[in-house]
Amino acid sequence: MSTYTDSIEKLINRLIKLPGIGRRSAERIVGYILGAPKEEVKALAGAMYNIKENTSFCRICNNLSEQELCRICSDNQRQKDTVCIVEKPSDVAAVEKAGNFRGVYHVLMGSISPLEGKGPGDLRIDSLMQRIKQNNIKEIIIATDADTEGETTALYLTKLIKPSGVKLTRIGVGIPMGSSLEYADATTLSKSLESRREI
Amino acid sequence: MSTYTDSIEKLINRLIKLPGIGRRSAERIVGYILGAPKEEVKALAGAMYNIKENTSFCRICNNLSEQELCRICSDNQRQKDTVCIVEKPSDVAAVEKAGNFRGVYHVLMGSISPLEGKGPGDLRIDSLMQRIKQNNIKEIIIATDADTEGETTALYLTKLIKPSGVKLTRIGVGIPMGSSLEYADATTLSKSLESRREI
Repeated sequence: MSTYTDSIEKLINRLIKLPGIGRRSAERIVGYILGAPKEEVKALAGAMYNIKENTSFCRICNNLSEQELCRICSDNQRQKDTVCIVEKPSDVAAVEKAGNFRGVYHVLMGSISPLEGKGPGDLRIDSLMQRIKQNNIKEIIIATDADTEGETTALYLTKLIKPSGVKLTRIGVGIPMGSSLEYADATTLSKSLESRREI
Repeated sequence: MSTYTDSIEKLINRLIKLPGIGRRSAERIVGYILGAPKEEVKALAGAMYNIKENTSFCRICNNLSEQELCRICSDNQRQKDTVCIVEKPSDVAAVEKAGNFRGVYHVLMGSISPLEGKGPGDLRIDSLMQRIKQNNIKEIIIATDADTEGETTALYLTKLIKPSGVKLTRIGVGIPMGSSLEYADATTLSKSLESRREI
């Protein structure tokens, strides 16, 4: 028999399904909710449900959007001739935080992963090729992850896009800013040497 | 301009108010929610709101309860003549987890804290004294925290209850199980020596 009430146990069991939330964190959140004004809890619960109701994907780039086109695709200031290919919508957010990219995106919705049974057909590659054909694109930057799946996807896309003659680049791999050479793994270090630039 | 949609930003801003949730954790939770089935999100949001609707406090001990009496007070197997005094409902859960206490509780709903402007009048002490007067109580265990506020509260309660002649005890303070003497702070160590037992 638990000391918590049924409704509290139910909430704890739902909260621990969230990423990064264990039983202890769930209990702390329950404590917070019990002490918070009812309006605040209602707003939080509502906000959770709202994103499921209101969020869909951009018709052009597959980024998260509440309209047909996402904020980036519908922004006239962005350079539509430079397309950055990423795996997931959260990668768009990461590149945007970096703040120096002024082009647009194409979200693949995953990466090629034979282990998870995901092949090129499961990714949004057809619509990418359409964009390349129909629009006057100057440069495509492949910004898939630097792991096996990301590299495989980058290789696949390179073979596919190269014949179109569009300038194709891959994001730089190397030592992270602020980190010491000493602690870098061998693969990163070797990649970092390969991608050295003249100064 | 954020890269997230309005409804996602709203949810992130609500999530980071929860204890232990920062911006990065909130973003991960949003990602999970976007990928989860709509029914699951609906259930989570509902469970959150439900605990506010359904949870009140036990008429006898102030523990969290969905009925007039909490599970412990309405359990005939519990020894009603042994009362453990704690500060908050979550302390009841902590003692219950320990698993060896078979008595009942009295939740004070706080502790005496002059810094926060909380005096004895803000705690559920009147109803505690009523319980002592009206029921045949054999032992009262004061299990308030081992910090300044908890010790002050324990001292106050001791002075108040002692004249009634009921057996009064305070939980043991000492080295936590599994931890090394070397790392214990001086106060804990001195308290631990004071509370030594013959073996």
